[in-house]
Amino acid sequence: MSTVSTPKHVYIFGNGKADGDGSMKPLLGGKGANLAEMSRIGLPVPPGFTITTEVCKHYYSHASTYPMELLAQAKAGIAHIEELMGQKFGDRTGMPLLVSVRSGARDSMPGMMDTILNLGLNEDTVAALARATGNERFAWDCYRRFVQMYGSVVMGVQKRSREDRDPFEDAIHELHGAEIEDSKLTTADLKAIVVRFGKLVKEHTGKEFPADPLEQLDGAIGAVFRSWMNDRAMVYRRKYNIPSDWGTAVTVQAMVFGNTGDRSGSGVAFTRDPATGENVLYGEFLIDAQGEDVVAGVRTPEPVALLERHLPEAFGELVSIRARLEHHFRDVQDFEFTIQDGKLYMLQTRNGKRTGLAAVRFAFEMEKEGLIDWKTAIRRVPADQLDQLLAPVFDAAALKGAPCIARGLPAGPGAASGKMYFSAERASAAAKRGESVILVRSETSPEDLRGMIAAKGILTAKGGVSSHAALVARQMGKVCVCGAGALRIDYAARTLTVGGKAYHEGASISIDGTAGTVYPGEIKTAPSEIVQVLIEKSLKAEDSYTYRMFSQLMDWCSQVTRLQVRTNAETPDQVENGMAFGATGIGLARTEHMFFQGDRIDAMREMILADNLDDRKKAFAKLLPYQKEDFVGIFKALKGYPATIRFLDPPLHEFLPHETVAQKNLSRKMGVPVEKIWARVNELEESNPMLGFRGCRLGIVYSEISEMQARAVFEAAAEVEKSGIPARPEIMIPLVGFKRELDLQVEVVRRVAEEVMTENKMNLSYLVGTMIEVPRGALTADDIAHTAEFFSFGTNDLTQTCLGMSRDDSGSFLPAYMELDIVKKNPFETIDQEGVGQLIRMAVEKGRGTRQGLKLGICGEHGGDPESVKFCHRVGLTYVSCSPFRVPVARLAAAQAALEDEAGGK
Amino acid sequence: MSTVSTPKHVYIFGNGKADGDGSMKPLLGGKGANLAEMSRIGLPVPPGFTITTEVCKHYYSHASTYPMELLAQAKAGIAHIEELMGQKFGDRTGMPLLVSVRSGARDSMPGMMDTILNLGLNEDTVAALARATGNERFAWDCYRRFVQMYGSVVMGVQKRSREDRDPFEDAIHELHGAEIEDSKLTTADLKAIVVRFGKLVKEHTGKEFPADPLEQLDGAIGAVFRSWMNDRAMVYRRKYNIPSDWGTAVTVQAMVFGNTGDRSGSGVAFTRDPATGENVLYGEFLIDAQGEDVVAGVRTPEPVALLERHLPEAFGELVSIRARLEHHFRDVQDFEFTIQDGKLYMLQTRNGKRTGLAAVRFAFEMEKEGLIDWKTAIRRVPADQLDQLLAPVFDAAALKGAPCIARGLPAGPGAASGKMYFSAERASAAAKRGESVILVRSETSPEDLRGMIAAKGILTAKGGVSSHAALVARQMGKVCVCGAGALRIDYAARTLTVGGKAYHEGASISIDGTAGTVYPGEIKTAPSEIVQVLIEKSLKAEDSYTYRMFSQLMDWCSQVTRLQVRTNAETPDQVENGMAFGATGIGLARTEHMFFQGDRIDAMREMILADNLDDRKKAFAKLLPYQKEDFVGIFKALKGYPATIRFLDPPLHEFLPHETVAQKNLSRKMGVPVEKIWARVNELEESNPMLGFRGCRLGIVYSEISEMQARAVFEAAAEVEKSGIPARPEIMIPLVGFKRELDLQVEVVRRVAEEVMTENKMNLSYLVGTMIEVPRGALTADDIAHTAEFFSFGTNDLTQTCLGMSRDDSGSFLPAYMELDIVKKNPFETIDQEGVGQLIRMAVEKGRGTRQGLKLGICGEHGGDPESVKFCHRVGLTYVSCSPFRVPVARLAAAQAALEDEAGGK
Repeated sequence: MSTVSTPKHVYIFGNGKADGDGSMKPLLGGKGANLAEMSRIGLPVPPGFTITTEVCKHYYSHASTYPMELLAQAKAGIAHIEELMGQKFGDRTGMPLLVSVRSGARDSMPGMMDTILNLGLNEDTVAALARATGNERFAWDCYRRFVQMYGSVVMGVQKRSREDRDPFEDAIHELHGAEIEDSKLTTADLKAIVVRFGKLVKEHTGKEFPADPLEQLDGAIGAVFRSWMNDRAMVYRRKYNIPSDWGTAVTVQAMVFGNTGDRSGSGVAFTRDPATGENVLYGEFLIDAQGEDVVAGVRTPEPVALLERHLPEAFGELVSIRARLEHHFRDVQDFEFTIQDGKLYMLQTRNGKRTGLAAVRFAFEMEKEGLIDWKTAIRRVPADQLDQLLAPVFDAAALKGAPCIARGLPAGPGAASGKMYFSAERASAAAKRGESVILVRSETSPEDLRGMIAAKGILTAKGGVSSHAALVARQMGKVCVCGAGALRIDYAARTLTVGGKAYHEGASISIDGTAGTVYPGEIKTAPSEIVQVLIEKSLKAEDSYTYRMFSQLMDWCSQVTRLQVRTNAETPDQVENGMAFGATGIGLARTEHMFFQGDRIDAMREMILADNLDDRKKAFAKLLPYQKEDFVGIFKALKGYPATIRFLDPPLHEFLPHETVAQKNLSRKMGVPVEKIWARVNELEESNPMLGFRGCRLGIVYSEISEMQARAVFEAAAEVEKSGIPARPEIMIPLVGFKRELDLQVEVVRRVAEEVMTENKMNLSYLVGTMIEVPRGALTADDIAHTAEFFSFGTNDLTQTCLGMSRDDSGSFLPAYMELDIVKKNPFETIDQEGVGQLIRMAVEKGRGTRQGLKLGICGEHGGDPESVKFCHRVGLTYVSCSPFRVPVARLAAAQAALEDEAGGK
Repeated sequence: MSTVSTPKHVYIFGNGKADGDGSMKPLLGGKGANLAEMSRIGLPVPPGFTITTEVCKHYYSHASTYPMELLAQAKAGIAHIEELMGQKFGDRTGMPLLVSVRSGARDSMPGMMDTILNLGLNEDTVAALARATGNERFAWDCYRRFVQMYGSVVMGVQKRSREDRDPFEDAIHELHGAEIEDSKLTTADLKAIVVRFGKLVKEHTGKEFPADPLEQLDGAIGAVFRSWMNDRAMVYRRKYNIPSDWGTAVTVQAMVFGNTGDRSGSGVAFTRDPATGENVLYGEFLIDAQGEDVVAGVRTPEPVALLERHLPEAFGELVSIRARLEHHFRDVQDFEFTIQDGKLYMLQTRNGKRTGLAAVRFAFEMEKEGLIDWKTAIRRVPADQLDQLLAPVFDAAALKGAPCIARGLPAGPGAASGKMYFSAERASAAAKRGESVILVRSETSPEDLRGMIAAKGILTAKGGVSSHAALVARQMGKVCVCGAGALRIDYAARTLTVGGKAYHEGASISIDGTAGTVYPGEIKTAPSEIVQVLIEKSLKAEDSYTYRMFSQLMDWCSQVTRLQVRTNAETPDQVENGMAFGATGIGLARTEHMFFQGDRIDAMREMILADNLDDRKKAFAKLLPYQKEDFVGIFKALKGYPATIRFLDPPLHEFLPHETVAQKNLSRKMGVPVEKIWARVNELEESNPMLGFRGCRLGIVYSEISEMQARAVFEAAAEVEKSGIPARPEIMIPLVGFKRELDLQVEVVRRVAEEVMTENKMNLSYLVGTMIEVPRGALTADDIAHTAEFFSFGTNDLTQTCLGMSRDDSGSFLPAYMELDIVKKNPFETIDQEGVGQLIRMAVEKGRGTRQGLKLGICGEHGGDPESVKFCHRVGLTYVSCSPFRVPVARLAAAQAALEDEAGGK
């Protein structure tokens, strides 16, 4: 029998103590856990309490009701705050206690959910607040803000569409004209506004605005829970793969005020620069302002370094706290602070979001500083952001003549050119049409999220480095320039005006998120420093700090990785690029790509148009030297690393021209009647070419194809071996579903290998294996492994067949599927682990059951996706293969996967 | 320790005893086992021995060599024959022992492998034979036949192509002119021919013809083994799904001679008529002939009843043996006999191949006669031949005026019209083009097999009911008329001449295989008697013996079956047909078929062309009454049986016209600019529509589709229930791969159901389930079963996706795949049990793991394929569904599957 105990729904903190700690993020949310932790290490945190995520789950599974014990525990929490603050909730005489009510999920979801400030105000307490602070205008401004926020968030008095105007703002404008600034409102104005707001709430909802602070609290808690399921939170979660069942915690905390005068202020800061990674205190603040004002982007804040001039003491304390935070959390912190009448309060801390570049620099430098070890350094770099370091920058020469039309804050490094759009909807639509898009807004809000996802770059006229735009861009790795104040955007006219010149929506624009500069038109880009060092060799390693950090990171990765990374390559250049980035061989050489170059396509077409075996063989005889030459180049470039060579895969009609003019040209060139070409094209047409006459089906029906390809491979291998370089071909037969398909093709390959070895009086070592890319191949992998010396998972086609979903056609419904949460991620980008993953696991198990130590790889485009790479590691593949420029990303993901094993799996 | 014993390779028989028996077919082959059995029951069998199939396997796995013990055991076998026959192998003085060497697989493969007769003859023994029989011409004719057969089969002296002439026949013609008949050759001629044959062998092979009888035997055994792997044997095995690793046995048996004069003869007979099933001794014989002469079709044999006139004693014995055979084997036997100088010998017996009609009649009558029980009767009817009883016959009225141009033996019942082709190659090519083909040959040989497979009917000028053509047609269920002697076929001119009129290849012809008649041109066909009774009700049950047999068989089936059979139907007519054949509900109603009728397509097109939800809803409002009316009709016809209704499945572009003229017409009709139609068609075009925007993807993106369909179903159900007939809709959501897809659709269905129930103030009982037709659906069936109340396997699409093989496009390689033994059967006809079957088993297990007693069905076209039906029974499905006319076949297969369970599985 277990003893029955009251479940604990509320965790208090403050005054150097706390019920919870930083490890309790799943229960208390990131904000709640870190407030507890800060309190425990003695940082100045206003007291408060956190309602757990369990309560949120209860709320959703019990028709939006709270557990019965919650009210009592929340009251106890309020009593705890009252005690530490020496104030009373609803006090009509002394200084009344006001609280904030904030959301806090396990992972930060900045700006996605709702917050209520100044809760506890009513007709009575506002008067008490005025008396206690001696500042009536301040008190009524707090009250006005509270009623507006509560009325909108909790009571649902909101604009009905994006084009609609906010009813509260409308009410202010009715009373005081459209363009009045908040700061110009008098106490009398504010009082009148609050009265008008009360009526507005009554008109919209039929209810009175609640005066009882406890009733207010009750409503606010529910509103925060509800905001967990609002549209933008759901979009965000889908993008970042946050499960809906985590829920949010709610933190209730004593209000402190940054807006009580010029010895007060609010700010947000990072312990280091989250854009460039530089080790400097970085952030911004506003004097006489609440925190919301800093983030909102309405007043442009000042850099945090300038705080020293205004409030040197508080600044000194901040610098010391910065060091304590990093030392304690061992990671760069993003924190909020408020200074009330000279006293500094910490309102929140969390690990700072960062660009890929900053992540690398943080990791690199913190390891050097001894704050973290090298394994932690590897874990700290989000693998999918590493390629930001490889992204192009503007070409120096092209940039030289370009007129910089505006400057802003460099909020997301990199260079981007595209067509400008002023609305998220149109930006998103343009991206769907295939355009490169720069989203241009005065400022962004969570409602712009879809447009930001669609854009290559983001440019705003207002807001600083901790504005919504900067925050989101940083996280997504978008190029971003913020707060370029010279820009004037007219949404109605769809124009951007700067320096007296108007640019219309759809015009080209270029932004440099590393320099913070804006240029009209498209500007040519140049490779990143790393590419200049490794590939172009136009820059020395020691001259590039970026390269040195990158190189160190890759070296660390090599020390833990078990999963090899190969590259997809068809030319010596591609091989060299992949190897420069650390690939250990080719995982996929698509031989058909080689047939499209120069005259080769003619021989290929001759083959396809041939009526009989002899003519086909003649055509192949012409292709053989080309193909052999290709393989010689590849083997030489590989310097002894293995090359997985896939035999002809696409349907033959892909090699014939489909348009009349091209068919006529071909007819003249080949001396073949155009009717014959036309007839053959028609004959080869298929209703579902993906599932048609392709892959090994070609090599089986026309074994001369495989014979020619095998001869080219082995003759090339023999030639390269003779030059002293080992050649390690791994011949891969595509689209195998039946063991006997592979048997028949392997028979041809081995026969040709024997012939070439005899002709050259030498031995060649090679493997023959297959792609597993139709479900039947996976299901009968035990059988197929009797013949196959390796498997390579062709996850593109395996996804298409397993899901019955054509990649080319899924555009018509996949977006809806993502909206509706049917798929979490695009299955053509990240392996569908539940479905396709099952087939892969099955094939691995069955294949290795038959042939111990069977070599296993993946060559679909998922090979460069970090989540998929980690999956491949977990199921025990030997290698992944991806395009040359994705190799570093895959290497980092592979290293992180190995570290997850060390940590006992994830 | 086990004792080492010599493996037994040889099983002797004769004189009322045998080492083996009839149960040992896997080891001794059908022929060897039955000879042993006949010997055991005292039938007059010439003594002999059988070499086991194990030796054949050894031969293939040991580089064409025999096990070391074989020679000694074969010699002992010869000694056994010598003893019983009182003759010596190679005897130069008395009557020498001659033997036959024949193949014998577990299942009969008539004519596919090689046979050697008269083995043991050489210069010396031929003289001894002449002396002992007092018939020199006979002895030399035997020798001539032996040398010719052995030279061809064992030593490989054969024509090189089909057009080439046989070298031995050529040699005869050189010596004696082209047209000499064998019977005209004198003893001197025969001696000269044998000398010429010897030279021929030497010229072709460089070897002497072997004189040593044991060396001859050794060679003959190897040749029989090799013939297991010849082309035609492999084609035959593929067609009948006989594993290559069974191997053949070899039976060596004393020769008896039917060609020693007019008190001798050979014949083949069936204990009952294998074409019509009538209970009469049925067969044919030739006086003074060897068995090969009867089958060869060169001389037209006499009906076996006439034997009574020639050799009344032997005939009497035959009649008594007929009864003993049936009583012993409890099945209709196909046997060979030889009468040598008045003494009857049985050379072989086996279960007779039979037409579907005969199989039913045998089973029906033997049960009545008490020879078999009703369960055996069920087992005896090959399920895939049952539909021969349902096949059309010639329409009586159409037949009335038709001139019968020739008569032959009715060798395969049924009526067939088509274009005549005189070669297997051209027949096969024409069938591939989609023509109905009648293969017309003077006589057929195993080389014609492919053409026979391709043809709808077979017509020969020569040969009787046991000729190759008749035998094969019977087994395949082809319509066949044999030995229509009036026909003259000129292969070179490609003409058929009869009654002074020439018909060219490609002309139409009609044959009635039940009557044995031939007509020029195409003749209209009429439904079978069973259809006339059950569907058209134009014939009374008691007036049709065929119907009564059929009905009895179906009644028996009902007593054992566990697997239900439903029908695929979209109209009340189809429902009634299916139910008349015994279906217990609809397994698949494709709702989209209903949209193609009359004006409905206009509303459907309006919906597709609509720009917005409102217009789409308007179009649906027009479709709703139609669809409701359809369901009312279906529910009424079902009389309370369930109806699985699949929601809209095909991609929308299938409903729009693709040709310019049709688009213009539609534009006029709908008042929509043609550009808009054209644009929408283009927009909807897909690269792989099979994997595109279809199935539940439509209902999810346009939920108004599913809403309308659900409303139509439930409103119809309500209306029908009010009329007192229960309605049991089972709504099926197609193409589900993710549980959430189903969740979203089920939500719509249940909401509409509630609405309709409220509106009608009544309860309706219904189920909602899904099709499992993409691999992901099967892989995540445990998850999906939380929502699905039933699964129906859409094996068409599941096969396409599992194999990555488009049914529409597989024509380009699937024939090659069948030739190359990659697939045994067309996977779109018979479920690929190893691949697709694994997914089905997995889904069954996972689905029932989540939801015990989950209803499971199959609605792909495999539902009417007997082998697939049996698979469905074994994996535990609840029902199969197939087209109305396949229902009896499925019911029979289901009953047989249940009986296989009783027998302990197969």
